[in-house]
Amino acid sequence: MKLATLNDGTRDGKLVVVSKDLTRYCAASNIAPTLQAALDNWTDVSPLLEALAIDVEHEAVPCDRFHEREAHSPLPRAYQWADGSAYINHVELVRKARDAEVPESFYHDPLMYQGGSDSFLAPRQDIPLGDVAWGCDMEGEIACITDDVPMGVSKEDAADHIKLVMLVNDVSLRGLIPGELAKGFGFFQSKPASAFSPVCVTPDELGDAWKGSVIHLPLMVDYNGEPFGRANAGVDATFSLADLVAHAAKTRNLGAGTIIGSGTVSNQGPGGDPGKPVSEGGLGYSCIAEIRMIETIYDGAPKTPFMKPGDTVRIEMRDEHNHSIFGAIEQHVVEA
Amino acid sequence: MKLATLNDGTRDGKLVVVSKDLTRYCAASNIAPTLQAALDNWTDVSPLLEALAIDVEHEAVPCDRFHEREAHSPLPRAYQWADGSAYINHVELVRKARDAEVPESFYHDPLMYQGGSDSFLAPRQDIPLGDVAWGCDMEGEIACITDDVPMGVSKEDAADHIKLVMLVNDVSLRGLIPGELAKGFGFFQSKPASAFSPVCVTPDELGDAWKGSVIHLPLMVDYNGEPFGRANAGVDATFSLADLVAHAAKTRNLGAGTIIGSGTVSNQGPGGDPGKPVSEGGLGYSCIAEIRMIETIYDGAPKTPFMKPGDTVRIEMRDEHNHSIFGAIEQHVVEA
Repeated sequence: MKLATLNDGTRDGKLVVVSKDLTRYCAASNIAPTLQAALDNWTDVSPLLEALAIDVEHEAVPCDRFHEREAHSPLPRAYQWADGSAYINHVELVRKARDAEVPESFYHDPLMYQGGSDSFLAPRQDIPLGDVAWGCDMEGEIACITDDVPMGVSKEDAADHIKLVMLVNDVSLRGLIPGELAKGFGFFQSKPASAFSPVCVTPDELGDAWKGSVIHLPLMVDYNGEPFGRANAGVDATFSLADLVAHAAKTRNLGAGTIIGSGTVSNQGPGGDPGKPVSEGGLGYSCIAEIRMIETIYDGAPKTPFMKPGDTVRIEMRDEHNHSIFGAIEQHVVEA
Repeated sequence: MKLATLNDGTRDGKLVVVSKDLTRYCAASNIAPTLQAALDNWTDVSPLLEALAIDVEHEAVPCDRFHEREAHSPLPRAYQWADGSAYINHVELVRKARDAEVPESFYHDPLMYQGGSDSFLAPRQDIPLGDVAWGCDMEGEIACITDDVPMGVSKEDAADHIKLVMLVNDVSLRGLIPGELAKGFGFFQSKPASAFSPVCVTPDELGDAWKGSVIHLPLMVDYNGEPFGRANAGVDATFSLADLVAHAAKTRNLGAGTIIGSGTVSNQGPGGDPGKPVSEGGLGYSCIAEIRMIETIYDGAPKTPFMKPGDTVRIEMRDEHNHSIFGAIEQHVVEA
């Protein structure tokens, strides 16, 4: 099934069930007022939502027109957002440009940071930028939402705790990252509010494209109206979402509604090289930092600037019939 | 006023107003069911809670006996928990033991990490430890809860967004920290669930002890029944809680119910030295890592082991009349 949270003026919005083709919705208010409320009691609530989803599909219940622009992020605020780095090509690229080695441990021990989850941007909400020098970048990623996960869960069992899947634009302020990482405590100011896709879906909606807790489809990232990234989320994924959930739960329980991200989706080129921009026939990149690395590697210096007010990023994923699965994140950068 | 959240079997507990002497409470259910609900609408709700607090003080409403052991952390789960390092003596000590310099920037640019906030421990809940080799430590700290804070708030204005103050035991797994920090993304597995004091209070409850968004009282940390730390939270605070709130809000809004921590409370010795253990007449330390540093500095090697199952930590703060302000955090370590 497909779920969304409509902006009804409240902090947590209104939970709705959306048709598979994203054209109509029915409010789930009589089942659970919000997505967090549904996740808090998922075992009891999800069969009722699934039944409503069937009715929505058959138009057996009154539905309204679904507009992606009216959607919040599925969880407008969450109790946990932790982001991994499943696509080591991204890490390799970022480090190659500054002549840093990728430690061997990165291939079996995932990188993960704790992100801010107190107020996400809506999928069509502007990205407020305080200073162009902060180096605003998009990061196109996959994310999942879990139910309650017990401390020490195995990778195998972790897969069963993935209840919903969605896309995310993990906004990053590249200009603030080096200084912040040098302090040793990880990202904070350099990771402002992220935005998630208008719709989240249960893994079964992905059909054969969902294998081993990885989505095997291209992530479509457009920048200022041009194709920018078409990396396949099923390729070069060193870690699955289940691996990342298990990593997060090593020393503590994870509360229902925990969001775990894949990190920037990134594919190697056909020869194991860092790949090419879409404009040169490659699969491109899901963030500006990567294309700047490519430019640095090949031309000695980055050419593509980071985002400034007026720039637009669009992130979407389509199924084998070219239908949008999650709706599109589409955000303009604006002066804060 | 003093507020607490009683464990009523729900995830978010039940908001109650507690008498100043911590002996009785009255449920605030008809005003706001949970503390988060109160914070979501603080301007309207807090005057009603203040009025109830006066009635509780005068026994003008039916009250029940308040037992600290029945309390959750004031926010059993939160949308944000970010912890700073206001007490640079702690940072200096930790670095001195490994011959690392404290960068000059640390004295004007606070360290801060994003913590997990999806499920806190209750103030009397056991600390589950998966492996003694993880090096379990307590960290006694002050924390505040904010309402909605706008991006870019000044330090001056930030002070007005501090609505509630409490204590925290920021549980740390020292054995996992070096490896995790070396990866560059900050703490994750090394910071399992924290616990907060049974009661949180509005800053006015602190009277003259609340000056410049700092509490000027000793933090009493007992370890296995013996005094372990008596550092004054008003001494050697390089940053106030307002400074830390402003730091957190530099690039993004902070949602209502954001918790910001002070970092481990730590005082220098009388001559600017690292101080002495309580057993030797000093003010001691609010975490085991610091006493291990002292042992390393003076004796070449740490002597005090980290916590193991059976060990107990108690964290409390008393006013000038020796009355407990927030109730006590008291936790046993148990095998997970």
